[in-house]
Amino acid sequence: MKSIEVVYSPKLLPLYDLNGKLVVVIDILRASSTICVAFETGVNKVLPVAGIDECYMFKDFDFLIAAERNAVKVPTFDLGNSPFEFQNPLLAGKNIAFTTTNGTKALKMAKMQGAKEIVIGSFLNLSALCKHIEAQQLDVVLLCAGWKDKYNLEDSIFAGAVASQLSEQFTKTDDACIAAIDLYEHHADKLAEIIRKSSHANRFQLLHLHTDDVAFCSQLDYTQKVPKLLGEYLVV
Amino acid sequence: MKSIEVVYSPKLLPLYDLNGKLVVVIDILRASSTICVAFETGVNKVLPVAGIDECYMFKDFDFLIAAERNAVKVPTFDLGNSPFEFQNPLLAGKNIAFTTTNGTKALKMAKMQGAKEIVIGSFLNLSALCKHIEAQQLDVVLLCAGWKDKYNLEDSIFAGAVASQLSEQFTKTDDACIAAIDLYEHHADKLAEIIRKSSHANRFQLLHLHTDDVAFCSQLDYTQKVPKLLGEYLVV
Repeated sequence: MKSIEVVYSPKLLPLYDLNGKLVVVIDILRASSTICVAFETGVNKVLPVAGIDECYMFKDFDFLIAAERNAVKVPTFDLGNSPFEFQNPLLAGKNIAFTTTNGTKALKMAKMQGAKEIVIGSFLNLSALCKHIEAQQLDVVLLCAGWKDKYNLEDSIFAGAVASQLSEQFTKTDDACIAAIDLYEHHADKLAEIIRKSSHANRFQLLHLHTDDVAFCSQLDYTQKVPKLLGEYLVV
Repeated sequence: MKSIEVVYSPKLLPLYDLNGKLVVVIDILRASSTICVAFETGVNKVLPVAGIDECYMFKDFDFLIAAERNAVKVPTFDLGNSPFEFQNPLLAGKNIAFTTTNGTKALKMAKMQGAKEIVIGSFLNLSALCKHIEAQQLDVVLLCAGWKDKYNLEDSIFAGAVASQLSEQFTKTDDACIAAIDLYEHHADKLAEIIRKSSHANRFQLLHLHTDDVAFCSQLDYTQKVPKLLGEYLVV
């Protein structure tokens, strides 16, 4: 029987052996949600890059460029990071270079540590992701991008949602996995509410995140796409 | 209003500013529980040391020495690490050098990062600890020693117990703290059971931990002592 482990922060990833494993990168607010929306809209490929300057260079290479700081689109960029912007039908067939500090770091670390496959998970593709995972028959690591490397609620509760759906077919001997399932199962019927719980926290005030974005990113099964890292690119 | 934060692993501690804060070091199975028992028995002071060799040196300096590997007392040492051994009345007034890899590391890191006060918490001194924290009027960091730097259930649920008891008087803007409270409040009436949940996991099988130890370490308020780091020593 294959196993599921949950990692609450990229800082903890070096403690895990990823060789031959399937890693799901989770950054619910908002990179992994927005990337799922982009592929549902018909985007061709997404290049995750860490910094704004690096991202900007790709403007010259047939990429649209997406970046935000403090929840505001960076001037001179084509797109910010809100999922709503990626619903624009004009994006179909385009390539997008996308800045996401935590998400890019998590993807690169998973690759360097020998993961066999790396995919993107969000509530928006939960069922499709779980079907995909079941089909692979690999040990699974659910990697939460977190908030500046700290534990965050929305990524953890999503990890719990995945582990809960897969619990029949996988062993869960990992304490972080048991706790994530527990968190999810106590809040499954009010996801947006538990995620908004942190809106009292500085983090959400700093981010100026719109309630709309939180509600949107808490939706289940908006898409059947499961973005996957192929070389440097995310594709479906 | 003062704040409470929860840190699930010493690996994450460098992300936190500890200056002027009160840090509670938590290693429920079993170092922080056993240390609380030692002081209830009347031990004079405890010197936490990282390794067995280092610990052994203190045999020549009027210390009893305590060490275990794989839940078995190391031969030539006076004591192992089971809380039951530290109930022996002959220990009253003695000094003990105590090996605890995770616990010592957590204590030393908290000190290096500028914590104002460092104390030991376990279910065995929960109420006394909470009273002590309230009296200090400092920002609080609950530091879980974890299992080889990974998240573990018993330390996290204890952090939730402390944060839950103090929730009226402190702000909890930290996601890890919110999740720990949630975990604790859903399992407060069956602590030993949720802690034993991980007994299905490799960790407990590797440790050969006795059910007795788990049940003992899940008891509330066995003692009113709150061990505190003073220089290199834990004292009450």
